[in-house]
Amino acid sequence: MESRYFTIHSHPQGLPSRDFFALESQALPELAADEVRVQNLWLSVDPYMRGRMDGVTTYVPPFNLGEPLEGAAIGEVLESRDERFTPGDRVVHMGGWRDVAQLPGDSLQALPDIDVPPQAFLGVLGMPGMTAWTGLNRIAQLKEGEHVLVSAASGAVGSLAVQLAKAKGCHVVGIAGAPEKLEWLESLGVSAVSYRGKDAQQLSADLKAASPDGFDVYYENVGGDCLEAALDNIRVGARIAVCGLIDSYNAETPTPGPSNLSRLLIRRARMEGFIILDAQNWEHYPEFLQEIGPLVARGELDYRETVEEGLERTPDAFLKLFEGGNTGKMLVRL
Amino acid sequence: MESRYFTIHSHPQGLPSRDFFALESQALPELAADEVRVQNLWLSVDPYMRGRMDGVTTYVPPFNLGEPLEGAAIGEVLESRDERFTPGDRVVHMGGWRDVAQLPGDSLQALPDIDVPPQAFLGVLGMPGMTAWTGLNRIAQLKEGEHVLVSAASGAVGSLAVQLAKAKGCHVVGIAGAPEKLEWLESLGVSAVSYRGKDAQQLSADLKAASPDGFDVYYENVGGDCLEAALDNIRVGARIAVCGLIDSYNAETPTPGPSNLSRLLIRRARMEGFIILDAQNWEHYPEFLQEIGPLVARGELDYRETVEEGLERTPDAFLKLFEGGNTGKMLVRL
Repeated sequence: MESRYFTIHSHPQGLPSRDFFALESQALPELAADEVRVQNLWLSVDPYMRGRMDGVTTYVPPFNLGEPLEGAAIGEVLESRDERFTPGDRVVHMGGWRDVAQLPGDSLQALPDIDVPPQAFLGVLGMPGMTAWTGLNRIAQLKEGEHVLVSAASGAVGSLAVQLAKAKGCHVVGIAGAPEKLEWLESLGVSAVSYRGKDAQQLSADLKAASPDGFDVYYENVGGDCLEAALDNIRVGARIAVCGLIDSYNAETPTPGPSNLSRLLIRRARMEGFIILDAQNWEHYPEFLQEIGPLVARGELDYRETVEEGLERTPDAFLKLFEGGNTGKMLVRL
Repeated sequence: MESRYFTIHSHPQGLPSRDFFALESQALPELAADEVRVQNLWLSVDPYMRGRMDGVTTYVPPFNLGEPLEGAAIGEVLESRDERFTPGDRVVHMGGWRDVAQLPGDSLQALPDIDVPPQAFLGVLGMPGMTAWTGLNRIAQLKEGEHVLVSAASGAVGSLAVQLAKAKGCHVVGIAGAPEKLEWLESLGVSAVSYRGKDAQQLSADLKAASPDGFDVYYENVGGDCLEAALDNIRVGARIAVCGLIDSYNAETPTPGPSNLSRLLIRRARMEGFIILDAQNWEHYPEFLQEIGPLVARGELDYRETVEEGLERTPDAFLKLFEGGNTGKMLVRL
């Protein structure tokens, strides 16, 4: 059986172009003991993948040039030599960027028994949802009724962070770009602030207008001017959960940080980075599923998806992440 | 009775010059009920005072133009209308930058009964010592045997932070400038690294040479290149206690922050500012005295003082803080 997959043959400088990604194929060998073959149905593309293209180990090993890229995916078992899986089982795994994956059974998880569409486990009930929940609750220790700011508030993680904060009775301000994203945020009861055409100072003034008393928690996905504007508006004892800094992922030279880091001191604030796949975070996944799963099954979380059709469109889906091209979770349907 | 004091008549731009400070005098009124008159013996000058000269409330109210500047001081009671104090008592208070202070009794503290020279309560057993102890233990949650980096490591706070960390069995690297400061640090068993003539990249390489495995805790007094070089060298789970950012206190325009804040994310690190006079910090002062007082009384902490003689030299003492002119606590003896 053939597997078609995307790979890269060099490390990109800046934002890669569409043709930087090569679609190749290989004949899959017979299944070895404990291996499982999976027909992928949904692929996830995520900003963190950009870091894995640089050939440097950060918190995950880099992608290997010439080998299939990796990423979260949902698929259906075609054939199994692991007794825990039988053909037809729905599974989630990291063998994305390809149509057919062949993996050790240990690297597959059966989809949890919650009545939601399977791709929800790549988004609202997968890594992005878990990331929003962990950043707010465990890293920033959000309390009821606090003032919360979320950057990239209509993205896969941000769109859930704003809703989880709203569900906790918080006053929520979200930063986004496109008018339809701002509108959607407003429909959720979130005060939406556009970053477009603004420097840090202007953005800071608009955040102040949206929340004159400032922010207790800042959920950071972006960095750059968003961080500088947010620092201007933090309250005493504020917590900044650093989930991502997408502004810098494609920078070709180091870009300076905010000039107002002294706000951390003046406001006795805390800024903390976290990686959702670290054991001390991921071990709370069952707790997250138990709390958030029922909300999703009952339709109480308005999770959005932006879907590209067909394996061939995977690089396009990935590149859109850096162009503001998605509302909610960016997915590829095979 | 006359009180001679220093004041300022405008807000400085950048580092003020010596003649920016005016020595003036006033006749003190009769003591009101509950007031105490104190002959000052020792005055403290500290970097945070620069912030109070800007006319803006940060975490302390600004100095009032034309009124006596304020700061920690040790003195002897001359006359008292507060029954808790009698002439001859040694007290610590905030009526510094002057020779005679007249204050409500509520704003005085009797010196604790520990057998040390009185000025120790402005340094090793005062705010600087408490700041070092709090930053390491309560903010950074330092554990035995960890790798610790301290900037401004020969300053009032840094020189105590390095020793408290050594006493906890930690591997300690200190950043300082002058050769005699580096030598003194080495004599304490601290690996000393000079910042002089180096950009962030060179400093980073030297820190890596001094501690190839990086740092679990960074005690930050400086900011700028020190912060950037430190971020390059933090380990997974690192904690950065932000005590001060002296590099920026005299900046006339905002200076960009470090270009590598993404290290907080990659290393799942935490950066937290704190203000020692906040109630949740200062309430631990008795605990600090109980732990550190005996060490000082037994001569087990090598605390240094740099002393200027006479009230007239107070501005000179203050300005030296920004020129690397002090080892340990900067004091004025009257």
